[in-house]
Amino acid sequence: MRLKIAIQGIKGSNHYKALTELFGETDVEVLECMTFQKLVHAVMDGECKKGVMAIENSIAGSILPNYRLILDHHLQVTAEHYLNISHNLVALPGQEFEDLKEVRSHQMALHQCSHFFGNHSHIHLIEDVDTALPAQHIAEHRLFGVGALVPKGTAKLFNLKVMAKDVQNHSTNETRFVVIEKIGNSTKEVNKATLKFEIAHESGSLAKLLNVMADHGLNLTKIQSIPIPEEVWKYAFIVDVAFTSLTHFQDAFEAISNFSINPTCVGQYKSGKS
Amino acid sequence: MRLKIAIQGIKGSNHYKALTELFGETDVEVLECMTFQKLVHAVMDGECKKGVMAIENSIAGSILPNYRLILDHHLQVTAEHYLNISHNLVALPGQEFEDLKEVRSHQMALHQCSHFFGNHSHIHLIEDVDTALPAQHIAEHRLFGVGALVPKGTAKLFNLKVMAKDVQNHSTNETRFVVIEKIGNSTKEVNKATLKFEIAHESGSLAKLLNVMADHGLNLTKIQSIPIPEEVWKYAFIVDVAFTSLTHFQDAFEAISNFSINPTCVGQYKSGKS
Repeated sequence: MRLKIAIQGIKGSNHYKALTELFGETDVEVLECMTFQKLVHAVMDGECKKGVMAIENSIAGSILPNYRLILDHHLQVTAEHYLNISHNLVALPGQEFEDLKEVRSHQMALHQCSHFFGNHSHIHLIEDVDTALPAQHIAEHRLFGVGALVPKGTAKLFNLKVMAKDVQNHSTNETRFVVIEKIGNSTKEVNKATLKFEIAHESGSLAKLLNVMADHGLNLTKIQSIPIPEEVWKYAFIVDVAFTSLTHFQDAFEAISNFSINPTCVGQYKSGKS
Repeated sequence: MRLKIAIQGIKGSNHYKALTELFGETDVEVLECMTFQKLVHAVMDGECKKGVMAIENSIAGSILPNYRLILDHHLQVTAEHYLNISHNLVALPGQEFEDLKEVRSHQMALHQCSHFFGNHSHIHLIEDVDTALPAQHIAEHRLFGVGALVPKGTAKLFNLKVMAKDVQNHSTNETRFVVIEKIGNSTKEVNKATLKFEIAHESGSLAKLLNVMADHGLNLTKIQSIPIPEEVWKYAFIVDVAFTSLTHFQDAFEAISNFSINPTCVGQYKSGKS
């Protein structure tokens, strides 16, 4: 039986691209989920062993609702992957760029191409819940005058014409994806972890905890406040930490536990950056 | 001339509700923007003096792309407002709850009502880019069998029937909105600020800076990592701080400037919580 993996969106989306870079194109069965919630449920229900989920973008930042989903369902992050994002503007063949009156895409993709569209203000931008879906829609319904933004290589999946290449604002634009599973990564080859903790509501208590981490050789790469749902406007913290030895990390986690409330390892994994 | 204010979404949305709680219903002209980008541009272009923008939810957390928009356009936060969020399930009159086959709403609204829909799994959930828009669409196109999630009081705007009240998971669910303007708040009645800064990439440098804040009597209420777009996978930090005296805050900001890179006050304002 082939490994079945859930992604958000359809074949041709950036999630699909991340999946193929992680697991290859032939050895996996793909479950296309229209929402991140369905993706998470597919993993929870055991329909898929793994899910591939965007967690942050190098320009737009963290996708906090996805952290929320991971935490709420007690899932584990077992791997990460960085995907280079490029947006090609595609439409039905037989048209020129000037024929386009409308472009449909995900809010984030439109935002990432704002400079390009700023110079072509006659094009009406329409938000969609996905990137590849509008491309599929254009192809199936033969929508002339309408464009979509898709990753490199996706145009041919839907027999569309590339009207403009790499229309994103920033030449370097990456999205970080995580692999989520019900059971954590138990290999020894890990050098990064995602932790969640709460702290006492005392002045300076976060600074104290960050000092403990630094003292134990954990390199904090990012920190996010995330609400504690039961306690309105109180926050927990999610941090990513890098380390060189698993033993150091385990010692550090023990120390952190003494200075924090409900410390949780959301996942330990190998850094996707070499 | 009436004050013209931009919101995201249409009349009947939570943004509209926040606007009316802040400025009343009669004294303002509302510009309905279909995207957050258009909202920001309406303020930048001077079409609207102010914009009202959701910035975080007490369950889902911060809307980081909106922080990105504020920072990229050098806008100032001049006020904040907390709106109690309740979701009513509405549909065309003449139907019962059992007739609903589909509910359309924004991803966040659907997520916030997941327990309710978990108990009614025959209802197909469809993501939309807005909350009030599907309600308007149902009313205009006479879509039977389709429901939408809208704030309390909105059903009558579209002549829809409330099929179920308060279907959200958490009874206490609030969204924090900010008022954005081109020019900052210059009144003395401020006790809260949003700051952005970068730090040296040295172990423990964030902890050091948080200590400086605490020493100057700033109470850190939240912290977010947000990418520096030009430097892939390097982060700036956005913090909210509360204080009792403007002079203390000004002294603190000077001290912070000595320990950080590109410190910026994104806005000083009066706390929306009494």
